[in-house]
Amino acid sequence: MLGFTPSGTVALITDFGVTDPFVGIMKAVMLREHPALTLVDVTHGVSPQDVALADLWLSASYGWFAAGAVHLCVVDPGVGSERAAVVTRSNGHLFVAPDNGILSGILRADTAAETRRIDVAELGLSVPSRTFHGRDVFAPIAARLASAKLAFEHVGPPWQPRVEPERGASRSGAALEGEVVAVDHFGNLITNLPERWLEPAFTVVEICGRNLRRVTTYSDAEQGECAALLSSFDTLEIALRNGNAAVELGAGRGTRVRVRTEERG
Amino acid sequence: MLGFTPSGTVALITDFGVTDPFVGIMKAVMLREHPALTLVDVTHGVSPQDVALADLWLSASYGWFAAGAVHLCVVDPGVGSERAAVVTRSNGHLFVAPDNGILSGILRADTAAETRRIDVAELGLSVPSRTFHGRDVFAPIAARLASAKLAFEHVGPPWQPRVEPERGASRSGAALEGEVVAVDHFGNLITNLPERWLEPAFTVVEICGRNLRRVTTYSDAEQGECAALLSSFDTLEIALRNGNAAVELGAGRGTRVRVRTEERG
Amino acid sequence: MLGFTPSGTVALITDFGVTDPFVGIMKAVMLREHPALTLVDVTHGVSPQDVALADLWLSASYGWFAAGAVHLCVVDPGVGSERAAVVTRSNGHLFVAPDNGILSGILRADTAAETRRIDVAELGLSVPSRTFHGRDVFAPIAARLASAKLAFEHVGPPWQPRVEPERGASRSGAALEGEVVAVDHFGNLITNLPERWLEPAFTVVEICGRNLRRVTTYSDAEQGECAALLSSFDTLEIALRNGNAAVELGAGRGTRVRVRTEERG
Repeated sequence: MLGFTPSGTVALITDFGVTDPFVGIMKAVMLREHPALTLVDVTHGVSPQDVALADLWLSASYGWFAAGAVHLCVVDPGVGSERAAVVTRSNGHLFVAPDNGILSGILRADTAAETRRIDVAELGLSVPSRTFHGRDVFAPIAARLASAKLAFEHVGPPWQPRVEPERGASRSGAALEGEVVAVDHFGNLITNLPERWLEPAFTVVEICGRNLRRVTTYSDAEQGECAALLSSFDTLEIALRNGNAAVELGAGRGTRVRVRTEERG
Repeated sequence: MLGFTPSGTVALITDFGVTDPFVGIMKAVMLREHPALTLVDVTHGVSPQDVALADLWLSASYGWFAAGAVHLCVVDPGVGSERAAVVTRSNGHLFVAPDNGILSGILRADTAAETRRIDVAELGLSVPSRTFHGRDVFAPIAARLASAKLAFEHVGPPWQPRVEPERGASRSGAALEGEVVAVDHFGNLITNLPERWLEPAFTVVEICGRNLRRVTTYSDAEQGECAALLSSFDTLEIALRNGNAAVELGAGRGTRVRVRTEERG
Repeated sequence: MLGFTPSGTVALITDFGVTDPFVGIMKAVMLREHPALTLVDVTHGVSPQDVALADLWLSASYGWFAAGAVHLCVVDPGVGSERAAVVTRSNGHLFVAPDNGILSGILRADTAAETRRIDVAELGLSVPSRTFHGRDVFAPIAARLASAKLAFEHVGPPWQPRVEPERGASRSGAALEGEVVAVDHFGNLITNLPERWLEPAFTVVEICGRNLRRVTTYSDAEQGECAALLSSFDTLEIALRNGNAAVELGAGRGTRVRVRTEERG
């Protein structure tokens, strides 16, 4: 499914936060291009300049949108430099972003994805500012793509995008090792240990020097107990019932997690 | 007014925060069901797992929407457990929520409200994850109800919902006693002392060992003075002019508030 | 261009934050007036009661919207007092706000702007609460203006609005002096030194006792170096590459900034 039929929806992921007017300005620019667009905030709470986290949230979220969505992804520490601005087409979706690895998860998962470099001059955009390409480049291009004013093929020339290697988990016999890749709003620790590795082998999860048991739901854990369960992203998650596991364990992104099988005595 | 005619609007109250992609994913699921829905964020800033606060904000907000709105309320510490998922119909609105007391204010105020349990299997929903029924159950059902694809009567069987008792204020002669039920973004303290009890009896409000006078507007208070006035929810509110009363008084949810009449000397 | 043709868009700037239901309630009120409105959050993260910051963000953002937008601006420490509620028409946009100086930037930039006082009784609004005119006055008026149910001329009588003097930067020969007027989410310091003063004279920027060089983009600075560049608002900005300049320098709003020319040795 290499084509793209725009649904009129633009989904936004940025690290702009919600205290400044930056996101609102990008929306103004898009609605100016096409007032009937549907704009959906996925998150603007990516930690500043954290391209890897945006990559993760993008991979986790985009497939919930109907095909035909344009995903506007702006975490852009290299704004104003020579880094390219790109559009990638994958699985009937478009991704508009700086070429800094933010689309790595999308590109690793779909070897048939196609990428083009945005040709700013050719597309008639004004000379962009040096600090806000979200407003000057990415938003207008996303709006034109989402409203069928611009076809993917006319964005610019084909381009070989930057793809970061997966920060993978590893497996050695029944022993699994991975890490925390995100800490959510509740303090739950989302790991990169995929569900398909977990059944039915594991019984003990080790993190921060503690051994945790696996449970099925948050409320299966005892009050005050940290336990492991399946996250909504189909990976291992570590949670504290009615509490904040990140605080309780002193864990964060990058914290190592090990899973081993123990004999039941 | 027991009927429900959908307006196409879904109002969202959750404790998901705005740093993760969870709210965006719920919106993607809803727009997939029906792209023309109007989605309105009431708040995603309910403190994690704080069912009572969500109940309060829901009661305070829903009536400002035109009849025909679907209110999607997801504060759900029991997600994945055996707690029911329900839809309540009251005053021409629908409320889609876990059955954990979050609809208590709605249900106490309308004894004619009707509730049905969501029959996940019967409605053709996929087997939900154990951690994110907002995405897997509540969002798709809300979208179907809001777009008239699903009628209230077809949600599932009638159900007796959980209703928490009101954390009420009390009255003994001219003396009133209540508590702070919410602290807003400005640090204003919203109490559960209803307006109808306050006129014209009270003259002194006691909180945290301090006696405060009543004023009509924020700017009637002196600079640096904490004072009491009527909140926009028709209850007693305690505010610090151009400042944060919660910080100044060391008060929070649950802090006791007393009102007494004093002789004017 | 004194006229106004509504586009159906309402842009919101407030200090209400996003943890309480206040913004959602205002949206409910507006959609009740006219369900087809497009509502765009510019920001709700203005610091509580910070009229000057809202003024700045409003001036920086409104022009990115297509003409015909209504800008709903509610930072209102005087709510409930005798301060007027106004609508200003400028450059094909309308601004609905308390008359407390929040529109100063708009009014200074357009001497042809016209302002009318909102006549609450005449317009058939209910008696407003003393604490939430965003809900009771500004939202319904904004919605009626945006949906062409109410014409600017019928809002109320002409009114002389409050205009604060510009907190200007100054120039003495090649020496410029100004201040930080906003700190963004990334910790970048936005100053009031306009771009047109900066070329090609300046070479050294002094702030907090440190001398900074000018660069073209964030990534031109060395790792760990604070440097000056042009903000997306066409003023001087001070940034720390991949870091937080406000924290690094101990700077905030009001911090003085000087620019001087040095002989190149």
